[in-house]
Amino acid sequence: MTTLANRRVLLAARPHGEPKPSDFRIDEAPAPEPGEGEVLLKIRYLSLDPYMRGRMSDAKSYAAPVEVGGVMEGGTVAEVVASKSDRFKPGDIVLSHSGWQSYAVADAKALRKIDPTAAPISTAVGVLGMPGMTAYTGLLTIGQPKAGETVVVAAATGPVGSAVGQIARIKGARAVGIAGGADKCKALIEEFGFDVAVDHRSPTFAADLKAACPDGIDVYFENVGGAVFDAVFPLLNFFARIPVCGLIAQYNATGLPDGPDRTQLLLRDILTKRLTFRGFIVRDFADQAKDFFTDMSAWLRDGKVKYREDVVEGLDKAPEAFIGLLKGKNFGKLVIKVA
Amino acid sequence: MTTLANRRVLLAARPHGEPKPSDFRIDEAPAPEPGEGEVLLKIRYLSLDPYMRGRMSDAKSYAAPVEVGGVMEGGTVAEVVASKSDRFKPGDIVLSHSGWQSYAVADAKALRKIDPTAAPISTAVGVLGMPGMTAYTGLLTIGQPKAGETVVVAAATGPVGSAVGQIARIKGARAVGIAGGADKCKALIEEFGFDVAVDHRSPTFAADLKAACPDGIDVYFENVGGAVFDAVFPLLNFFARIPVCGLIAQYNATGLPDGPDRTQLLLRDILTKRLTFRGFIVRDFADQAKDFFTDMSAWLRDGKVKYREDVVEGLDKAPEAFIGLLKGKNFGKLVIKVA
Repeated sequence: MTTLANRRVLLAARPHGEPKPSDFRIDEAPAPEPGEGEVLLKIRYLSLDPYMRGRMSDAKSYAAPVEVGGVMEGGTVAEVVASKSDRFKPGDIVLSHSGWQSYAVADAKALRKIDPTAAPISTAVGVLGMPGMTAYTGLLTIGQPKAGETVVVAAATGPVGSAVGQIARIKGARAVGIAGGADKCKALIEEFGFDVAVDHRSPTFAADLKAACPDGIDVYFENVGGAVFDAVFPLLNFFARIPVCGLIAQYNATGLPDGPDRTQLLLRDILTKRLTFRGFIVRDFADQAKDFFTDMSAWLRDGKVKYREDVVEGLDKAPEAFIGLLKGKNFGKLVIKVA
Repeated sequence: MTTLANRRVLLAARPHGEPKPSDFRIDEAPAPEPGEGEVLLKIRYLSLDPYMRGRMSDAKSYAAPVEVGGVMEGGTVAEVVASKSDRFKPGDIVLSHSGWQSYAVADAKALRKIDPTAAPISTAVGVLGMPGMTAYTGLLTIGQPKAGETVVVAAATGPVGSAVGQIARIKGARAVGIAGGADKCKALIEEFGFDVAVDHRSPTFAADLKAACPDGIDVYFENVGGAVFDAVFPLLNFFARIPVCGLIAQYNATGLPDGPDRTQLLLRDILTKRLTFRGFIVRDFADQAKDFFTDMSAWLRDGKVKYREDVVEGLDKAPEAFIGLLKGKNFGKLVIKVA
């Protein structure tokens, strides 16, 4: 067996503010050999997600950072090309967390088999994977939307936001989506069935959002932060629920904005309006994986949930695509087609 | 029947910042006559509580403000002196919300009878009333302390804080109390059985609190805000719960503090540490009233919960006592002995 060349994207430096192309480095190394109980994987799709900005930083968070010089982390859909485990055989398609590279070795016990006849395999890192389950668990467990309530979500054409809005509608709530630009706003209504779309790039964004929520906001699914949060905050209703799973608008911040310090205002409204803010990441709700997969598969089959992918060809494009993701340049779930 | 003189404390003006004696006005008016289904009450005890600062302001909140010229609101323990209802007879002791006055008429359906042989009647506005139930419901429903966890509460010799610490201990948690001054800190340990007491007036308060919480903070029962919140915030553990029921340190604020604006920092930690902030007031948990009364009565009987009252004689002293309450001058549950 000739040695396979493993193309890898490494973290070259910790970004200060917005990541730059020079914060990444591409190299090639011999693909590793699987040991007993392991498999060799050929990566087919790499998922690019906003949380990865956190892994590039060494600020304290819920997961350890990628080491400088290490392979960038990420969820992947891969094909087994060699197996030293009786769990998998060559040709099997699996969900793995193999990162930004073309080959990887993995412990067979850490992999989940994907049925390639049930749905396109890339959905295993999208609507049927981490982003879809983030929307499902956070919205239903923390947000708890009721019929007739108003649910607001930003980055709404993204894989999390689009699922949040569609699940809200399934539960009888009114879905208000926030996105950047006319094309994305059009897709929110026409593709994803949101009730209203609001363009956060408009100079009248805060007023537009207020007009879009005449009865206030009962659930704000927070994945953006920053100026969107500022516009949402005064519209929150008594007993509003705010699941917090991302703050993409803040990830590149290098310091805090100028004052006044509104911390006391936030606490005041939490008290007087009896708001619930709760942070979560998808693995906090790992016990809901089966319910999620059952429900989401049925919704996809029945056409109640639509999804959109933004597929970029070639691993070498990953740094540029990721930098664009943080600026809202993608349109739908961003995946890199590695092979 | 001669007409009874009803002494009343009225809101003379909306305070700007700290309430002043001139924001109150004392007058006398004929006591009202009960109509059909009503009773005439002679107020025995008036409860003074921090939330009343909110009623003096016309900022939007969970309850309407007291009108300027109106009687100040408040919970009261009263004796029925005349009854036009078959629910009550003269001599009955009841819990009412009659405000800062010596007589009041009330709808019999709005009153709860108190058994004066079960506990001192003033406890109906203290450990067995609103403050005790605020501690019980907020701590157990939102805080959910587990054995071995660290629970922190400020204003800890007050009726809410002292109950929070003692209930936390009953549930096997470690109770850290914050209070102002050596006498109160001593009482936290010796009277109320807290594990540690921290003096927020100390110049090394933040460091003292950190030293008192070597394993971080799992539950912070928020009734203070301001500088105490700032010291608590960096010590919050992953998955910490923060029931928010009061912000006494902020009630007299006339504006927001200078920057930087830490809102983004707060959201960041809510996300990365998966914190839960939830505001509440006691009536949100009205359905737990029976459980509360049963449990708290048993804990009092068994000596597992102690309480301390700060009784001030005479309705005319209410404004001064209330102004002192907002500065932490009282020591225990502040009640006015009206008659």
